[in-house]
Amino acid sequence: MTNRLTFEKPLGMRDTLPFFYQQKRKAREAVSYKIESWGYKFLDTPMMEYLETVGEASAIEETQLFKLLDQQGHTLVLRPDLTAPIARVAASQLKEQGYPLRLSYDGPVFRAQQIEGGKPAQFEQVGVEYIGENSVYADAEVIALQIETLKAAGLEEFQLTVGHIGYVKGLLKEVFGDEEETQEEFLRYLYRKNYVGFRKALGQVDLSDDNKARMKQLLSLRGQKDVLATAEEITTNGACHQATRELKQLQQLLESYGVSDYVSFDLNLISHMSYYTGILFEGYAPHLGSLLCNGGRYDQLLPTFQSKASATGFAIRVDRLVEAMEQHASDKGPILVMYEPHTFDQGLQVAQELRTEGERVILQNKAYYEEGQNSYKQVIDMTEGGASVE
Amino acid sequence: MTNRLTFEKPLGMRDTLPFFYQQKRKAREAVSYKIESWGYKFLDTPMMEYLETVGEASAIEETQLFKLLDQQGHTLVLRPDLTAPIARVAASQLKEQGYPLRLSYDGPVFRAQQIEGGKPAQFEQVGVEYIGENSVYADAEVIALQIETLKAAGLEEFQLTVGHIGYVKGLLKEVFGDEEETQEEFLRYLYRKNYVGFRKALGQVDLSDDNKARMKQLLSLRGQKDVLATAEEITTNGACHQATRELKQLQQLLESYGVSDYVSFDLNLISHMSYYTGILFEGYAPHLGSLLCNGGRYDQLLPTFQSKASATGFAIRVDRLVEAMEQHASDKGPILVMYEPHTFDQGLQVAQELRTEGERVILQNKAYYEEGQNSYKQVIDMTEGGASVE
Repeated sequence: MTNRLTFEKPLGMRDTLPFFYQQKRKAREAVSYKIESWGYKFLDTPMMEYLETVGEASAIEETQLFKLLDQQGHTLVLRPDLTAPIARVAASQLKEQGYPLRLSYDGPVFRAQQIEGGKPAQFEQVGVEYIGENSVYADAEVIALQIETLKAAGLEEFQLTVGHIGYVKGLLKEVFGDEEETQEEFLRYLYRKNYVGFRKALGQVDLSDDNKARMKQLLSLRGQKDVLATAEEITTNGACHQATRELKQLQQLLESYGVSDYVSFDLNLISHMSYYTGILFEGYAPHLGSLLCNGGRYDQLLPTFQSKASATGFAIRVDRLVEAMEQHASDKGPILVMYEPHTFDQGLQVAQELRTEGERVILQNKAYYEEGQNSYKQVIDMTEGGASVE
Repeated sequence: MTNRLTFEKPLGMRDTLPFFYQQKRKAREAVSYKIESWGYKFLDTPMMEYLETVGEASAIEETQLFKLLDQQGHTLVLRPDLTAPIARVAASQLKEQGYPLRLSYDGPVFRAQQIEGGKPAQFEQVGVEYIGENSVYADAEVIALQIETLKAAGLEEFQLTVGHIGYVKGLLKEVFGDEEETQEEFLRYLYRKNYVGFRKALGQVDLSDDNKARMKQLLSLRGQKDVLATAEEITTNGACHQATRELKQLQQLLESYGVSDYVSFDLNLISHMSYYTGILFEGYAPHLGSLLCNGGRYDQLLPTFQSKASATGFAIRVDRLVEAMEQHASDKGPILVMYEPHTFDQGLQVAQELRTEGERVILQNKAYYEEGQNSYKQVIDMTEGGASVE
């Protein structure tokens, strides 16, 4: 093989070399252990699903889906998330298990790259889905567990920003009445976090001074629990008051969980244009330019699988979690035991004893050993010239 | 969504529900721990590769590849194994590390299903690749580690059958000379384990009685180390004698490793028509109708990635490993702590204490709890009517 592609990988595809693999696995194990200690059960679904079922039910836009045809002529997609496949399983094979279901997953998802953007087209997510309980207690459990998992992984500094889609939509409806397109337009500015565009558009719409002021105030409803009181004051409709009531209850529950220091509120947070239906959140870490984790309540997904269940959950990007943590390259490497043919048995004995003691040991024929960029905890020379042969 | 596919998955795709997930993870963790204790380093490669690089280098037939087009018009494949991608990495990003490389992997691979055959189109393999040492010591290490991993996973009864492709090819050449098509034909019978066809074809070819007798004897060269002596006796060519010499040395080394009880020899074993180049092996367990694991020396793969390195390795089918083991459903389930809104704080306190002690604990709002098919290690009722509230 001598063509130009020999060592190339498809766009957005990456190898995970041993050091990063180990860091990722450590993080995933710590997160999984914490999730299991809260009674969640791990499961897995296939990498491929039908476009017309899970593909369409997922929150990911169709342009980001990897598609292929199977031999029966159906269009398949590589799973773009695990929430939709798990909803499928929850609504079918697990429907006799009794609600609520606490499910979790740990695996790769795929997002097609439109252009060379340096973004991975495959990455791993660890997450939970809490299905069948439409209560703030469920939202609080998921957010508290989100925080506990990040702490368990060893991440020290991070912040969760919590919002409520019902509040934003309620305020927009109170301000704009039946002008649905205008509401959609402002929602889109918030979704894209384009506050300049939001303010500019606000200058161009015909609104009372009071309504303009409230729209501007929406952008500043960020901070600790006191913003919830302000948020409540500037609105009069039921949807907004329901939202602030839920957020206040959430705040109290997160205090009980002892995790409220990691949480701030942002009443204009919109993580997705249509997916979430209640409390939602995003997680960030210092020095990490992108989203670490996110989640929230989604009550419209299970109904696409003929189930009435409400649900909430979170997903962590494992690659970014590892990136967010200080890397301690503390691993000294394995012990290297060198032998030559007539000292093999002695070398093997030493290696087996050390392995029994929990050490990682390479047993190596010296004739085939090349110096490389490896570090060893210890080198034991069991060749004839070696110090350790008696 | 009300179409007929709602809960369906593509052909050969399976969900891994919690019980099987846990069994698989336990097996994978035990196997991985053992592999690491021998100094192998885990890595991962993407699920998708270019057809013209890794797709063509792999040992899997093209009809079994899942193919898709990327947005640049290249044909991609879902990786059908991990040996070829790891050869790509070993020959590029890891080429400065110094040979030999001991690498390992744990992940899904894909095989397209031509017809409804009940076979999974996606399954997990855990395996190792020992790259850059063409010695029987390397073959012996891989076989000994193969056995130790299966033992570590908890499998008690299994058997490894070891052969040598050089022996079969050497004998066929000695018997048939330049008749390459005839050699290929008999090789194919052996590959398909079609011994009836082999015997029938032998009745139809023009051979001396002595050669016919040797060909028949080939089929019976199965058993313990004494077959190696017979195998040597019935041939006179260098390739066969090289093969039996290697197998004898292997036998001694496996005795040193203390694993020779798990090994028998089969001099007509052919796991692949063209892939292996030396010692090769297959692993079976009682009551398991299909291959549990296999491996061997493959010296022609790295050269397709412009490296001269020789290599050997093994791969375990994780689903079959779990199937081969007695399932002990010993998990009693998590502890269930029930609360109602005004006893939430007490419930939380109990749950947090138990989790700190290492228990898995579900903290559940009683109003949303449905009886289902769950088992709990203990149910603690912290609602007002519950016994545990003081």
